Amino acid sequence: MKHVLIIGCGLLGSSILKRIFKKKLAKKIFVYEKSKKNITKFKKLKLPGILIKNLEIAVTQSELIIFCTPMSEYKNIIKKINSFLTPKHIITDVGSSKSRSEKIIKKNLKKNIFWTSSHPIAGSEVSGPENGKQDLFEKKWCVLIKSKKFNINHLKFLSTFWKKMGSKIVVMSPERHDKIFSITSHLPHLIAYNLVKSAQDFEKKQKYDLIKYSAGGLRDFSRIAASNEVMWRDIFFDNKKNVSKAINLFIRNLNEFKKDINSQNNKSLLKKLIQTKKVRSKIIRLKQDINKPDFGRD
Amino acid sequence: MKHVLIIGCGLLGSSILKRIFKKKLAKKIFVYEKSKKNITKFKKLKLPGILIKNLEIAVTQSELIIFCTPMSEYKNIIKKINSFLTPKHIITDVGSSKSRSEKIIKKNLKKNIFWTSSHPIAGSEVSGPENGKQDLFEKKWCVLIKSKKFNINHLKFLSTFWKKMGSKIVVMSPERHDKIFSITSHLPHLIAYNLVKSAQDFEKKQKYDLIKYSAGGLRDFSRIAASNEVMWRDIFFDNKKNVSKAINLFIRNLNEFKKDINSQNNKSLLKKLIQTKKVRSKIIRLKQDINKPDFGRD
Repeated sequence: MKHVLIIGCGLLGSSILKRIFKKKLAKKIFVYEKSKKNITKFKKLKLPGILIKNLEIAVTQSELIIFCTPMSEYKNIIKKINSFLTPKHIITDVGSSKSRSEKIIKKNLKKNIFWTSSHPIAGSEVSGPENGKQDLFEKKWCVLIKSKKFNINHLKFLSTFWKKMGSKIVVMSPERHDKIFSITSHLPHLIAYNLVKSAQDFEKKQKYDLIKYSAGGLRDFSRIAASNEVMWRDIFFDNKKNVSKAINLFIRNLNEFKKDINSQNNKSLLKKLIQTKKVRSKIIRLKQDINKPDFGRD
Repeated sequence: MKHVLIIGCGLLGSSILKRIFKKKLAKKIFVYEKSKKNITKFKKLKLPGILIKNLEIAVTQSELIIFCTPMSEYKNIIKKINSFLTPKHIITDVGSSKSRSEKIIKKNLKKNIFWTSSHPIAGSEVSGPENGKQDLFEKKWCVLIKSKKFNINHLKFLSTFWKKMGSKIVVMSPERHDKIFSITSHLPHLIAYNLVKSAQDFEKKQKYDLIKYSAGGLRDFSRIAASNEVMWRDIFFDNKKNVSKAINLFIRNLNEFKKDINSQNNKSLLKKLIQTKKVRSKIIRLKQDINKPDFGRD
C-alpha cells in the first residue's frame, strides 16, 4: 500500500496508526484529527504519521481511507472529501453499528464511490490516542460488511489489511451484524449504564454510601459504563430498532426471574442459574476472555 | 483463640481455614463438610485442619463456629448442633443476605445463644476448596451485623478476627445491609444471569452464533453469571423484597433509556452516559477495583 489516511485519532485510529507504522504497511500515513485535545496529545506522544489539515492532498494521494471518528461525524467529513474521491479509493470505517450508518453514507457519498465497512471487535473503556496499542486487534474478530452493492476487490483488500492488523476475519450483512451486536455489545453497555444509574438513584434517595461496597458485583459493570459517551450515543441511536427489541427481550426475562424469586420457584430458578453458567466456559473455550478467576485481577 | 470450627469448606471456608492456619490463630481447626466432592478435594489438597464427622466434640471444644455453607443449610446444621451450644460460643456466618436468614436462625437456634452475622465482601465466580486463598479477604470490606439483640463482646471478638483475616470492618443493621447489597451485588448478579439468558434465547431463536462475538461486552457479564447457583438462589430468595424493588427501579431506568433512544433525545441520553461514567473513577479511587483498562486483562 502506498499511502493511507486515518480520519480520527482516538483509541482505534491511533492503534491502527501504530500498527501500520510498526509493520511498515504504508509509505505515508496521513492523520486527520479535529479535536484540539487529541492534536496536542498526538504531538506530545510523538506518534508516527503526518498530521494534516488539508484533506485534499491526503485524500488524493491515499489508497485507503479509514474513518475512526464517532459515527455522527461521518456525514460532515464525507461532504468535505466527496469532490476528491474516485472509485479507486478504498474507504472503510470502524463503527460499531452498520444499517443506519450505511444509509447515511449512501445518501451523502458521491455516486460510484465504494465504502466497505469494518467493525473490529476491540476497544476499551478508555479512549484517546494515549491509549492506542499496536496489538489492540491481535486475535480479535473483525467483521467486514458485505452490503447489497459491494466491491469484491475492496473487500479482499480490507480482509488482507485487517489480517495484518492481527484480526480474524468474518464477513456478514449489515442487518445480521446489527442484530448480533445489539445482543453481545449494545445491550450489555446499555445495561451497565443503567445499573450504575440505578445505583446512583438509590444512593441519592437512601443517602447510603453504596459505591464503596461495589466489589460485590457492581464494579464489573462500572468498567463498560465508563466507555466514551459520544461513541455510545451514536451506536444506540444508529441501532435503535434492534436495541429496543433487545431491551424488551431482557425486560421479559427480568420479570420472569422476579416472578420466580417472589414465588420461590426453586426448580425454575435453579434451571436458569445453571443454564447461564455454561456460557462462561464457552467464552473461555472460544478465547474471548482470559481463563483466570476474577479476570486475573489479583 | 483455642479451637475453631469451620462448617462448609468451599471457597470461603477454605480461605478462612488457610488464613487461620497461616497466621496460627487457633490451636485446632475443625472442618465439617457434607459434600463428598469437597471432602475428596480437601484430602487431595492436603488442607490443614481436622476433617470431622462428629459435630459434638468439635462444637463443645470450639470457641468460634463459622458457617460457610449455603444459607439454605443453616437450619439443618443448627438443629444438629443446638444441644451442644452454650452462650459462650461465638457463632457467625458469611452469608450474603441477612434479614430473612436472621429470622430463620432466631427461630431455630436454642434460646440464649448468640449469633453474630458477618459478610466478607470477597468472592469469585469460581467455588470449591481448590480455589481458596489465604489472602482472599485482604483489604476487602467485612460487614458485621448488629441486630436488635446483640452481644457486644462477640461483636468485638469478630471484629478482631476479621481484621486478622485482612478485612476492613464496617458495622450495620441487617436491614441496611440487605438494602445496600441488593443494589451493589444482588442486582448485578441477577442482571448478569438474565443478560446471558437473553443472549441464549436470541441465539436459539435466530440460529446465530453469538457467543464467539462476546468480546464486545457480554464476556464481562458472563463472569458473574458463572457464580455458584445454590448460593445465589439462596440469596435471591432470602432478599427477595429488596431485590424485587431493585429490579423495578432498574426496569424503570431501562424504559426511560429506551424512550431516549427511540426519540433520539440527544441531551437526555448524553447526560446519562456522562453521569454514570463518574462512578468508575470513584470505584478506582476507593480501591474497589484495579486501575487498569480492561481489568488489566492483557
